[in-house]
Amino acid sequence: MDLFEKLLKDRGPLGNHSKLAHGYYAFPKLEGEIAPRMQFRGKEVLTWSLNNYLGLANHPEVRKVDAEAAADYGMAYPMGARMMSGNSTIIEQFEAQLSEFVGKQDTMVLNFGYQGIMSVIDALLDRRDVVVYDSECHACIIDALRMFPGKRYVFPHNDIENCDKQLERASKLVEKTGGAVLVITEGVFGMLGDQGKLKEIVELKKKHQFRLLIDDAHGFGTLGKTGAGAGEEQGVQDGIDIYFSTFAKSMASIGAFVSADEQVIEFLRYNTRSQIFAKTLPMPLVLGNMKRLEMLRTMPELKDKLWTIATALQNGLREAGFNLGAAGESPVTPVFLKGGQNEAVNMVMDLRENYNIFCSVVVYPVVPKDVIMLRLIPTSSHSLSDVEETIIAFKAIKDKLESGEYAKAEPVIFS
Amino acid sequence: MDLFEKLLKDRGPLGNHSKLAHGYYAFPKLEGEIAPRMQFRGKEVLTWSLNNYLGLANHPEVRKVDAEAAADYGMAYPMGARMMSGNSTIIEQFEAQLSEFVGKQDTMVLNFGYQGIMSVIDALLDRRDVVVYDSECHACIIDALRMFPGKRYVFPHNDIENCDKQLERASKLVEKTGGAVLVITEGVFGMLGDQGKLKEIVELKKKHQFRLLIDDAHGFGTLGKTGAGAGEEQGVQDGIDIYFSTFAKSMASIGAFVSADEQVIEFLRYNTRSQIFAKTLPMPLVLGNMKRLEMLRTMPELKDKLWTIATALQNGLREAGFNLGAAGESPVTPVFLKGGQNEAVNMVMDLRENYNIFCSVVVYPVVPKDVIMLRLIPTSSHSLSDVEETIIAFKAIKDKLESGEYAKAEPVIFS
Repeated sequence: MDLFEKLLKDRGPLGNHSKLAHGYYAFPKLEGEIAPRMQFRGKEVLTWSLNNYLGLANHPEVRKVDAEAAADYGMAYPMGARMMSGNSTIIEQFEAQLSEFVGKQDTMVLNFGYQGIMSVIDALLDRRDVVVYDSECHACIIDALRMFPGKRYVFPHNDIENCDKQLERASKLVEKTGGAVLVITEGVFGMLGDQGKLKEIVELKKKHQFRLLIDDAHGFGTLGKTGAGAGEEQGVQDGIDIYFSTFAKSMASIGAFVSADEQVIEFLRYNTRSQIFAKTLPMPLVLGNMKRLEMLRTMPELKDKLWTIATALQNGLREAGFNLGAAGESPVTPVFLKGGQNEAVNMVMDLRENYNIFCSVVVYPVVPKDVIMLRLIPTSSHSLSDVEETIIAFKAIKDKLESGEYAKAEPVIFS
Repeated sequence: MDLFEKLLKDRGPLGNHSKLAHGYYAFPKLEGEIAPRMQFRGKEVLTWSLNNYLGLANHPEVRKVDAEAAADYGMAYPMGARMMSGNSTIIEQFEAQLSEFVGKQDTMVLNFGYQGIMSVIDALLDRRDVVVYDSECHACIIDALRMFPGKRYVFPHNDIENCDKQLERASKLVEKTGGAVLVITEGVFGMLGDQGKLKEIVELKKKHQFRLLIDDAHGFGTLGKTGAGAGEEQGVQDGIDIYFSTFAKSMASIGAFVSADEQVIEFLRYNTRSQIFAKTLPMPLVLGNMKRLEMLRTMPELKDKLWTIATALQNGLREAGFNLGAAGESPVTPVFLKGGQNEAVNMVMDLRENYNIFCSVVVYPVVPKDVIMLRLIPTSSHSLSDVEETIIAFKAIKDKLESGEYAKAEPVIFS
């Protein structure tokens, strides 16, 4: 059989709807400066879909450093992998700042989060080891585990009783294999908006021997007294053995980092394949991220404002009768509605075209077949009147959905 | 057992030497603007270790666009994955330019090469399929295959007779599984400097049914009449079904792309996990890469100069009695010498400290135990007098190596 023929027979759960979705529901273009009001297909929309939690993307100080660093260094420097020719004093300084901020001995900056965490997990483990992980872990963690030749036990999302059972099984298994146990979960689950039960998992260290790796992509900068993330928020930062976050969310950039004991980071520097065999983060991104970290540390008003908006949005929607699931533990705000795919399509179009509100929509297979999930990401750049406008619009589309209006209409094809 | 205790017992093939290597042989800092002469530990060295083939890293026009694009957009825009909120007209225009340049119907720009090719290979395959690949494929391809649950057959580097045999086996197997066959090789092998035998592999399509994926990281911009890479060089660009390259070598940037038939690229847009679940390439990198592509297309003098330098270096070293293996088919210039690790360490230090020449050194386990490989990367920024200086220095260290001088000295510890 021909590979391409095979592919085109089944274009995948998302690809099978590309004709309907492309350019509107999937691959939309948000134009203009990153802000609550942006352009979508030529008109202004109130945007709730960017992880620009602290509003740093377009902060004048950030824009100034981004521009100056690119003028000073260009986008090429340094060239090559860190290990071969791409190391620099500045990236080491940045690593020291990150270590101090998250309260770990040492840090390795990663050229990209997705491949970074994949290779970190890969470097830590061999086939004798056993992984215990949350069922809602991000795609990059799942891909890391797809490379892993050893045994893995999954526990249902945030089910600590089950996690305990999986740890029991894992402990027994490593007694035979001579390996070790690694638990992987997230600080904040980016789809559902709840926090990982880090405190409870750290508590399980009293019963079982394991190390804990946390992906805190959405918690870093948004949670904890100083913004150091979900571990700080739950008072168990020291119980996190390997702390990972991307710069792609509250830092509004790219790249990532991993922090741990000095010797573990040294081990990772010499064994993390995507870092040894690929180019380091360009200098303007290192300097831009340093500036963002400084602001994240020294401007608590950004996080306070984020939470003012997030709380108003979440309370307002709940008061209006919406089901937000476990929302409230992070700014991520999912809104669960009942309906099929056609209703989702018509509702989102109505929301965008007639209420000028842009948010992401998630349908089957990510959520069950009769569930429509709209996901709102509040930021410190939003205003309370943005929140009000949104709640009014959401009430209106909920009424239409429940009255069956969206079920009647034929979905429009855009492409 | 404790995971960290286990790790620190064996720090890996490279990590076990970190005390000796760190900051000098591994993780060195090359400072100053990217150029043939840079600073290493406070002194000027003639540098042969950056894949800046066309000298674009610090070309004034590139630097201008890098600076302007960062000033116009900052490093944050666009935010989110392409599919959710990170799409833009400019990245689509860049994709059209890349398609035209490499002679394919369509192109997807990737946020990073390493994770990009991993997820592309992952998206193309299911467990019924069979992969046939070259033993010297880059780490990112090997990692992709580590995720792959199906059967893979490796052929010894560039051994076409054996490739034919593996294709025979693969064809028989997919008859049973109902899957398809994918062959993966590289346009240029970045360690050895030889080209993949693309012409011969494409010829095998007459005997076997398969699709061909090429990683042309080092060929793109350096090979072929127009610089379109190893496929153009060998006259078989049309026989390459999926063409991949990074922007990290001749484009002196980050990011990557994959080009193929329109329907295959559409499939990949909707099924490539590291692109669906991670942030798109920031706009200054898109615009910077567009500028680099324009220069790569319109300034053939850069590639001509590169080859003037590469040819002079390779001929000069060969005339001086050095073993360059299969070098000559690309600018990559490996120099193979006989010696153990201590000799390698002393020789490279002598080269850097007393001859002011900086190049990468590769030892066991990447090459056999008694082999030292020095790897030189010529660029269009180098001059013929740089070449001359280097050949004189190489002759001198070769004499010392052969006289046993480097075997006597104790290696110096720097860290």
